[in-house]
Amino acid sequence: MAIGKSVKRVDAVAKVTGRARYTDDFYIPGMLVAKYLRSTIAHGRVKRIDSSKAKRLAGVEAVYTYEDVSQTKFATAGHPYSLDPAHKDVEDRLLLTQHVRYWGDEIAIVVAENSLILQEALKLVEVEYEEYEPLMTLEASLSKDAREIHAGSNNVIGESQYTVGGKIEDVLAGADIVLQNRYRTQMCQHCHIENHIAYAYMDDLEHIVVVSSTQIPHIARRIVGQALGVPWGRIRVVKPYIGGGFGAKQDVILEPMVAFLTLKLGGRPIKIDLSREECMIGTRTRHPFDVKMRAGVNRDGTLVALDMEALSNTGAYASHGHSVAGAAGAKSRSLYPRAALHYHARTVYTNMPTAGAMRAYGAPQIIFSVDCIIEEAAHKIGMDPVEFRIKNVALQGDVDPLTGERFVSCGLIECLQRGKELIRWDEKRAARPKNQTGPVRRGLGVACFSYASGTYPVCLEIAGARIILNQDASLHIQVGATEIGQGLDTIVAQMAAETIGIPFEDVHVVSTQDTDVAPFDTGAYASRQAYVASNAVFRAARELKAKILEHAGRETGILGGELDILNGEIVDRKDPSRKVVSLKEVALDAYYDKEHGAQLTAEVSHKTRTNAPTFGCTFVEVEVDVPLCSVDIKEIYNVHDSGVILNPVMARGQVHGGVAMGIAAGLYEEMLIDRESGYIYNNNFLDYKIPTVVDVPDIGCEFIETYEPTSGYGNKALGEPPIISPPPAIRNAIWDATGVKINELPMTPHTLFKYFKKAGLL
Amino acid sequence: MAIGKSVKRVDAVAKVTGRARYTDDFYIPGMLVAKYLRSTIAHGRVKRIDSSKAKRLAGVEAVYTYEDVSQTKFATAGHPYSLDPAHKDVEDRLLLTQHVRYWGDEIAIVVAENSLILQEALKLVEVEYEEYEPLMTLEASLSKDAREIHAGSNNVIGESQYTVGGKIEDVLAGADIVLQNRYRTQMCQHCHIENHIAYAYMDDLEHIVVVSSTQIPHIARRIVGQALGVPWGRIRVVKPYIGGGFGAKQDVILEPMVAFLTLKLGGRPIKIDLSREECMIGTRTRHPFDVKMRAGVNRDGTLVALDMEALSNTGAYASHGHSVAGAAGAKSRSLYPRAALHYHARTVYTNMPTAGAMRAYGAPQIIFSVDCIIEEAAHKIGMDPVEFRIKNVALQGDVDPLTGERFVSCGLIECLQRGKELIRWDEKRAARPKNQTGPVRRGLGVACFSYASGTYPVCLEIAGARIILNQDASLHIQVGATEIGQGLDTIVAQMAAETIGIPFEDVHVVSTQDTDVAPFDTGAYASRQAYVASNAVFRAARELKAKILEHAGRETGILGGELDILNGEIVDRKDPSRKVVSLKEVALDAYYDKEHGAQLTAEVSHKTRTNAPTFGCTFVEVEVDVPLCSVDIKEIYNVHDSGVILNPVMARGQVHGGVAMGIAAGLYEEMLIDRESGYIYNNNFLDYKIPTVVDVPDIGCEFIETYEPTSGYGNKALGEPPIISPPPAIRNAIWDATGVKINELPMTPHTLFKYFKKAGLL
Repeated sequence: MAIGKSVKRVDAVAKVTGRARYTDDFYIPGMLVAKYLRSTIAHGRVKRIDSSKAKRLAGVEAVYTYEDVSQTKFATAGHPYSLDPAHKDVEDRLLLTQHVRYWGDEIAIVVAENSLILQEALKLVEVEYEEYEPLMTLEASLSKDAREIHAGSNNVIGESQYTVGGKIEDVLAGADIVLQNRYRTQMCQHCHIENHIAYAYMDDLEHIVVVSSTQIPHIARRIVGQALGVPWGRIRVVKPYIGGGFGAKQDVILEPMVAFLTLKLGGRPIKIDLSREECMIGTRTRHPFDVKMRAGVNRDGTLVALDMEALSNTGAYASHGHSVAGAAGAKSRSLYPRAALHYHARTVYTNMPTAGAMRAYGAPQIIFSVDCIIEEAAHKIGMDPVEFRIKNVALQGDVDPLTGERFVSCGLIECLQRGKELIRWDEKRAARPKNQTGPVRRGLGVACFSYASGTYPVCLEIAGARIILNQDASLHIQVGATEIGQGLDTIVAQMAAETIGIPFEDVHVVSTQDTDVAPFDTGAYASRQAYVASNAVFRAARELKAKILEHAGRETGILGGELDILNGEIVDRKDPSRKVVSLKEVALDAYYDKEHGAQLTAEVSHKTRTNAPTFGCTFVEVEVDVPLCSVDIKEIYNVHDSGVILNPVMARGQVHGGVAMGIAAGLYEEMLIDRESGYIYNNNFLDYKIPTVVDVPDIGCEFIETYEPTSGYGNKALGEPPIISPPPAIRNAIWDATGVKINELPMTPHTLFKYFKKAGLL
Repeated sequence: MAIGKSVKRVDAVAKVTGRARYTDDFYIPGMLVAKYLRSTIAHGRVKRIDSSKAKRLAGVEAVYTYEDVSQTKFATAGHPYSLDPAHKDVEDRLLLTQHVRYWGDEIAIVVAENSLILQEALKLVEVEYEEYEPLMTLEASLSKDAREIHAGSNNVIGESQYTVGGKIEDVLAGADIVLQNRYRTQMCQHCHIENHIAYAYMDDLEHIVVVSSTQIPHIARRIVGQALGVPWGRIRVVKPYIGGGFGAKQDVILEPMVAFLTLKLGGRPIKIDLSREECMIGTRTRHPFDVKMRAGVNRDGTLVALDMEALSNTGAYASHGHSVAGAAGAKSRSLYPRAALHYHARTVYTNMPTAGAMRAYGAPQIIFSVDCIIEEAAHKIGMDPVEFRIKNVALQGDVDPLTGERFVSCGLIECLQRGKELIRWDEKRAARPKNQTGPVRRGLGVACFSYASGTYPVCLEIAGARIILNQDASLHIQVGATEIGQGLDTIVAQMAAETIGIPFEDVHVVSTQDTDVAPFDTGAYASRQAYVASNAVFRAARELKAKILEHAGRETGILGGELDILNGEIVDRKDPSRKVVSLKEVALDAYYDKEHGAQLTAEVSHKTRTNAPTFGCTFVEVEVDVPLCSVDIKEIYNVHDSGVILNPVMARGQVHGGVAMGIAAGLYEEMLIDRESGYIYNNNFLDYKIPTVVDVPDIGCEFIETYEPTSGYGNKALGEPPIISPPPAIRNAIWDATGVKINELPMTPHTLFKYFKKAGLL
């Protein structure tokens, strides 16, 4: 019916015609604009701030500094509220700060009639700082005499560990071979096309409306309430179409401030529209990791142990803080579940921009390290890296060694086999000279990943769906899950059409989230929505279908149980070719019969208590130009087990985007920060290099479809995973081509030059 | 708890601070404006129309004429769609017409960048007419050789009748006395402060959004679909705050046109904002009635028969058409239900502005006639008019003589007794000289009414409510019923607070209607909403309360049935002073417990199959200045049995507004139309006289509270009824003062002069 078909996105026309309205496309007469005054030092304290000149400038409505805001700290992370105090997010934020913690920190805000006046006004605010030594590395932050970036933290925001399969030192001691290495990943930024933007207004003196480009409208509502001390029910967050988020909008960045400003200014509409420069330095980044890995392996090709010791750099503020390192460790557990595993991580404050959630949430950092050392282990015992993986990766029926949860769907081995075929692994390896010596050399690489479809049991997983039968036999579906460009709206329409039995075109999706009326859902992150919402949509659709058939039964005299819906017609369940009555007729009767019936709707709020991992791998062939230190990807294939593929074209779109972003993380992107001043050199798209369409190769994409029974439609995560395995696969291919192991990201010519020089290739 | 208290309106602050946003307060960048080209004749045919010059004017986007629109006729009346073809509304409208039927008819429309360009462009459209004789009276329209205003109609749009209590001629023949007279009411206009306004746009090529000042968003959605041939599910109607409607917005006036324009112009936002002049002539008016009455009465004071023969003038188009005359007859049935009744009505097309729904929907016209002849009957047999009414009006336990439905609540006699006391009826009548002769004379008058709380069994009665428990133990309530200024939002908040047991302040109402997500309800008319919605709100609130207590039971280990909610706390049902747990704690647990619970919501769509009449009366004392032909109201009291009064201050507000509007209909308002050309002289507030605050006397208002068990909270209609009885009460008081029976409305000095002259008083 609708599932598994490449139906056209429900917002395709709106988006390609430019009609889709994003936050900045809305305008309220009299809207003011606001802009932060950002610190010009990375660490220190404002000694004196004088905004009197700025306030006198014509067109300036107000200037607020750290002196004007509440001293109640709040947390910004887009996590569900936790009833467990141990899972409380770190509250280390004020609306504006006197204690400056990174270059660009928010110390004051100006509100004015337009952005030109804002820029003039910002120049008129006088600031004097007391400067502290910026702590720009993990080592500096962790040194004994380091000044605390947040009082009482010792600059460590969190620490966690797990051990499964025995004491790691004992297991390692019993392995035939033990390898160790250290891997580092870089700070990069999400680079969503639509910068962070939000506005707020009040229609009375009680209720605050915030319209925002957010992945997490319901969580934003809660955090605005917490930050301002306003009951949550008085806050309404509206999410229009979103131009990408990738995790940077899984944080509450602007919403509390615009709400604060409208409260201060009598309900007037006030907008903050971050520039690209502000967005890159002042929102969120990906945590750089520094991981010490050890692997124990037996000569027969058995991986017996992985020891992971990770340091994560969260920058100036907590945001998602240690959760990222914690989740990264958990996600790596399902990849080699039969080995003994030890994971220990600490997350450290530095005076760098704040790291938060980013696509795949720590997994790319940990999996890079895992796939590097796995490759080294295979080499060490002289086994084909694919075969080594096939021997050790998760199988259907394996269990998460910590939680004991069984992997009821797992097609990773099939993914590896298919990827190997696609890239002609054996054929190419056999045909290639053993030790390449020319300037341009070819290599093959592989890397695997696993990734959970949601966050349970660490976090709450809840989704809501409400479906309405319209008079014309079409449906309106309203979900709590959030369309941010990934295609969620289309997927839920497919789900509803499938279960109820009407044409996909007859499902209309309420795309705009409005927390006053939208069913509750925590939002777009953790590749959770199609998985978690599937259960809510399935249940609501089934309930609505039952109501429709019951009403059809009243109308036709045939028991509802004897009827079914097929392609918008009520049919005989036992002989679906026999039409009984049209759905439209039933709908009209339900609405308009004076004596019987009702508007037929169904609403379900569903908590999911499973977390099925998705699996996959990347195969890549590279050509390395040794003198130029450049890498050219000749072929790349991502093969995924994401359960049932709901919409092949959209799924391929996710893979293409994720692989491109993975290539970018592998070969291009890094935020370059001055170690003395904390200044970010490349806070814009001229200097911060993301690959363009000419830089990205053709991307091969295949799916090994399994069926995941804990999901409404057999599906599993697909949004984030494609980003995970390309960097280690490329790294392994470069090694294969050149014999040089690159142990850090990004593998730019600059990095390769350093390694090639050291290896004597140059 | 909350019911029966004069809580502050939920929108009070929004409205008094000017923050409440009405349709014109929204703006979409790039919005175009449109204006109709209206005919300058009342009856005829456009022979030639040339818009080429207008189209060439810079800033003009488009000009459409009757040649550009579909020839599919549609109905505009804001009735629920009927499954019964006999109740189908009359489809006699095109988006633009070549056949002109009244002065101001819509023959073309211009779309331009702004309203100045619009005005210029309209002047450039050249029109040539073939003129027909305008039919400006019932007589002219019904004359044998009259040209048909709508082909095939014979200028009669509908006819209906009922007879109860025996053949009317037989019953009249058996009465001691038979009286007869003829009464006429005028055409007047609703004079809502916010003129008709709507805009439309598309975010894609499929879905049309219409934002409109309407009483009936869900019906507007359907009619736009019917008018344009677009499936109803693709149309979304949004209703912001509304500045009054009184029935003129219970018609679909602008919505199909703005939807048509945005469809034509690729989804661009287009607004039509009618001027006051257009609103007065080109929207809707009140049907003028011409009623021949006969009453049969016995000398003992028994009213034995009423024979009502009504002609209703619907003007140029059907709109609500004959429904108004039909409903008026039905509504009069419950006032003197023990008498034999015969009602026959015809509704006639003329070339006057189109009549539609207006506050009390025909009842003021019929009840004027009824209360006039009843007064005459009392006089004739020499009985006090109040006593005559007390002897004959409906009693609790009486039944509607046609439907057999029992009046389970009826306090009309108590209303009459209380009104009599308030105005000191006996005392004043005793003290007054029998035949006043001076220039200034005083008189007392009384009149009664009954009015149904809804439209069943003629029409569908359906209401929907959805209630959400928020995390902070507040509620959001979303209803299909429409706030248009009358206070519906506040009332439903009181209902939900009452039933669930939380403070009124903790109920947040979703005031903006959005047909994509709002529960279905046919809208604001027939004083139906507080009555019909009460059942939906009550059921939804009870369901949500049960869910809350069930969840509290899970949390506390106490069975939900043993618990109750009191003032936002979960308490012991048997000992409500014992708090068990806070509602907030239960709410947080329901949302955020990882294993159990869900967002707690309840949604109910309810069809009401009762129609309880409300009753009441007006007592008035007037001072008539005979030489000046002027009437000064010295005292006026409205006493209502509207069941339980939900919010006394708001109820009094309804009565004050209704009585003022009744006085206006009695003494001031009339649309003055040129009989030759059809031109409306007083199409504005300078020339069309509505009383201002200095013209309206102090209004006395009391309620006889009964309990209506078919309503969720014992309440009955109150929105419209206060308008009904003031005009006949004033007429009866003028008669009492002067001995002159005025048999037509309005009783302006102009009218009184004619009658006083004829009676020899001048």
